[in-house]
Amino acid sequence: MTLSPTPRSTVKRGHKRAVTERTALHSVLDAALVCHLAVVVDGAPLVLPTGYGRDGDTLYLHGSTGARSLREAVAGVPVCVAVTVLDGVVYARSMFGHSMNFRSAVVHGVAVPVTEPEAKLHGLRVLTEHLAPGSWDYARQPTTKELAATSVLALDLTEASVKVRSGPPGDHEDDVAANDRWAGVLPVRAVWGEPEPDPTLVGGWDVPPHVVTRSRASSAGGPLG
Amino acid sequence: MTLSPTPRSTVKRGHKRAVTERTALHSVLDAALVCHLAVVVDGAPLVLPTGYGRDGDTLYLHGSTGARSLREAVAGVPVCVAVTVLDGVVYARSMFGHSMNFRSAVVHGVAVPVTEPEAKLHGLRVLTEHLAPGSWDYARQPTTKELAATSVLALDLTEASVKVRSGPPGDHEDDVAANDRWAGVLPVRAVWGEPEPDPTLVGGWDVPPHVVTRSRASSAGGPLG
Repeated sequence: MTLSPTPRSTVKRGHKRAVTERTALHSVLDAALVCHLAVVVDGAPLVLPTGYGRDGDTLYLHGSTGARSLREAVAGVPVCVAVTVLDGVVYARSMFGHSMNFRSAVVHGVAVPVTEPEAKLHGLRVLTEHLAPGSWDYARQPTTKELAATSVLALDLTEASVKVRSGPPGDHEDDVAANDRWAGVLPVRAVWGEPEPDPTLVGGWDVPPHVVTRSRASSAGGPLG
Repeated sequence: MTLSPTPRSTVKRGHKRAVTERTALHSVLDAALVCHLAVVVDGAPLVLPTGYGRDGDTLYLHGSTGARSLREAVAGVPVCVAVTVLDGVVYARSMFGHSMNFRSAVVHGVAVPVTEPEAKLHGLRVLTEHLAPGSWDYARQPTTKELAATSVLALDLTEASVKVRSGPPGDHEDDVAANDRWAGVLPVRAVWGEPEPDPTLVGGWDVPPHVVTRSRASSAGGPLG
């Protein structure tokens, strides 16, 4: 399934890096923890980092970012969301050829507040399980008051673009032929550290399995937000 | 020196997390490699990842992101730039208390195209040395044609805000007193991998010192863009 490109979601520059498979979009969104949400406020752009989670072709956004006025500004108006995973720095022979290896997704749409209680709980579950897999069943469930204080937005993934750069530098053939400088890629990835227990815990606590499992799963491309 | 807050750059929600020292702004900007640049195009927000570099209180942005029309759209109009470093996932006892440890900076201003040759070369040097320290002196310098094909934007850092969350969960005292669930932080950081030489290199090449040094400097909070 392709990404149903519209003019604004069609990658114009570096189109060789554009990827049009929907699975690629999902893969990028699933690989990071932080998105950057942009909205127009008083005619000027505003971009803020926030948490998100994906369920099928719906992106749930943590809407409690910024002031109440911002939450209101975001609801029901066009937004743009970007998720970027950095995979490496590309050291070319030429300064001009220096680049980054990355995977990025950009989504355009209207963020709809999720207010119906069942739907909101579902959205929160998706958000929580993306941020902290296993926590939904482990942690104390939200009270009515906490639910009311939480804002969840839903964004359809229909209009989206994906861009990927991978592999070695793309130096000009003259630079390659000269063979007078090193070139290559320095990969970068995110790794989990050791869990740090809350100092207010009383008694001997084992770190629960859902946290242990994650802290040991650092070999794959991790969350770079 | 403080960050000269204006109403839109004053952190409203989570104001306990706002940091007003200019050194904190510099520190966040220096810790990542990718920023998210937002601009208004045809009345709708557009946010894209791009490279940047800082010199004093000037942020240089790699302006060759997206189409020519976007580059033109960015020049001379209000932009908003966010840089976010993720430091950990906060596992609270309550679902509601789940959070992230992070450092983020948001800058508002007008991005000015840098066109004067000396100034442009300086901006490119700052950009390159942020992306790949040591590469400016090592790599082949840009030709006149390459320079013309590169777009550099300068953004003043006067209007900016910084937000930081660190430390353990902030669970409600009743949840802490219950002591019936583990809570803590799972730190995350970026690490450099082993340099991957370009397969087109001919003969035996040592990885140059500026790349080796970086690949071994993975212990500190790395670039999470």
